[in-house]
Amino acid sequence: MSNKWLKSLQTDTAQDGFELAIKLARMGVKYTQPSDEVRNRLRADYAENADSLTAASQVVAINFQTVAAANGYWR
Amino acid sequence: MSNKWLKSLQTDTAQDGFELAIKLARMGVKYTQPSDEVRNRLRADYAENADSLTAASQVVAINFQTVAAANGYWR
Amino acid sequence: MSNKWLKSLQTDTAQDGFELAIKLARMGVKYTQPSDEVRNRLRADYAENADSLTAASQVVAINFQTVAAANGYWR
Amino acid sequence: MSNKWLKSLQTDTAQDGFELAIKLARMGVKYTQPSDEVRNRLRADYAENADSLTAASQVVAINFQTVAAANGYWR
Amino acid sequence: MSNKWLKSLQTDTAQDGFELAIKLARMGVKYTQPSDEVRNRLRADYAENADSLTAASQVVAINFQTVAAANGYWR
Amino acid sequence: MSNKWLKSLQTDTAQDGFELAIKLARMGVKYTQPSDEVRNRLRADYAENADSLTAASQVVAINFQTVAAANGYWR
Repeated sequence: MSNKWLKSLQTDTAQDGFELAIKLARMGVKYTQPSDEVRNRLRADYAENADSLTAASQVVAINFQTVAAANGYWR
Repeated sequence: MSNKWLKSLQTDTAQDGFELAIKLARMGVKYTQPSDEVRNRLRADYAENADSLTAASQVVAINFQTVAAANGYWR
Repeated sequence: MSNKWLKSLQTDTAQDGFELAIKLARMGVKYTQPSDEVRNRLRADYAENADSLTAASQVVAINFQTVAAANGYWR
Repeated sequence: MSNKWLKSLQTDTAQDGFELAIKLARMGVKYTQPSDEVRNRLRADYAENADSLTAASQVVAINFQTVAAANGYWR
Repeated sequence: MSNKWLKSLQTDTAQDGFELAIKLARMGVKYTQPSDEVRNRLRADYAENADSLTAASQVVAINFQTVAAANGYWR
Repeated sequence: MSNKWLKSLQTDTAQDGFELAIKLARMGVKYTQPSDEVRNRLRADYAENADSLTAASQVVAINFQTVAAANGYWR
C-alpha cells in the first residue's frame, strides 16, 4: 500500500484509541481485499450476522490492546 | 461516532472494569452495525446459541485484559 | 447487574485463580443471556460438543492470563 | 472441583511448562464437562478433525503464554 | 524454509510494522502450504468471504501486537 | 511425551523464533493426536482450506508472541 495511513499509535483520548483500533482492523482486511466495491458488498452481509459482528469486535479488541498499551492506557 | 462514550479506562472496582469490558465489546459491534433495531433483532438469536455466547464472552475477556492492565489490576 | 459478584482479582492460590477465570468466562455469558433457565438448557448441548468445549476452555485461558498477571503468577 | 490439581505455575523446564499448558487447556474443558466418559468419547471425534486439533493447539498456546511469563521464560 | 525472510522485528514506522505483521501472518500460512499456486487459488475464494477476511485481519492484529511491542510502540 | 523436544525458548534470530513458534503449534496438535499417520492425512485436507490455514497461522502468531517476548524481541 503506497499511501501513508498510519502515522502513530499515539492518540489524545481512549476513545480516539478505540477508533484507531477499528481502523487497524479494517486495514487488516483491506490489505487482503483492496477493492472498496467488494468490501462494501461483503459488509452488507456480515453487518446482519451476529457471529460476524462478534468476530469483528474481537479484532477491534485485540488491536485496542495494542493501542492502549502504546498510550500507557491514557492514565 | 460523534458522541463521547468512553472517557477513561480507569474504574473504581474490578467489577466496574468487567462491565466496561462488556461495553467495549458492544461498541466494537456498534461501530460496524450502528442500527439499534438490527442489533436488538440479532441479539434475540445469538442469546439462544451457546457458541455465540461463548464468542461474546471471549471478546469481553480480551477487553477485560486491557481494562485490568489499565487499572493495575485493582491491587 | 446490580449485585456484587467480583470483589477482587486476587486469589490465594493458582487453582483459585483458575476457578475465578472460569467464573469470569461464565459471567461474560450471563451478561448477554441473564436467564438461568436458558443457559442451563444450552449447556446440556454444548457440553457434548468437542468444539464448543474447546471454545469454552479458550475463554477460560484468556481470563486466566488476566488473573495470573493480577496475582504476579503466585510466585 | 474439590481436589487439588494445580499447585503452582512454576516448572523446571520450558517443556514441563508446555505440558502444564496442555493440562490447563484440558482442565478448562473438564470444569464444563466433568464426565471422563463423555470427554473420552468426544476426543475420538475431534482428534480426527484438523480444525478441532488446531483449535486445541490454540488454547494450549494461550495457556503457554501464561505459564512462560510465570517462569520468566526459563531464561 | 531455507531462505532468509525475517531479519528483524524492528521497523522505522508504525505502518511498516503493520506491514511486517501482515508478512508474518502470510508466512504462517506459507509454512503449512508452501505452494504459491495453491495459496493464490485459495486467496481468490477467501478474499470474497467476509468471515475469512475478518479472520485474516485477526492474525495480523496478533502479529502486530508482537511487532509493536518489539518497537516500543514507536513512541 | 517421553522424549525431549523443547530445550529452550531462546533462539539466535527472529526467524529461528518464528520457526520455533511453528514447532510449538504443531506440538500442541501432536499431544492431542500422537499418530503421525493421522496428522499427515489431515494435513492433506486442511492445507487446501483457506480458513484452516488462517487458523493455523493464528496459532503460530500466538506462540510467536511468547517466543519473541522470551528473546527480548531480538533487539
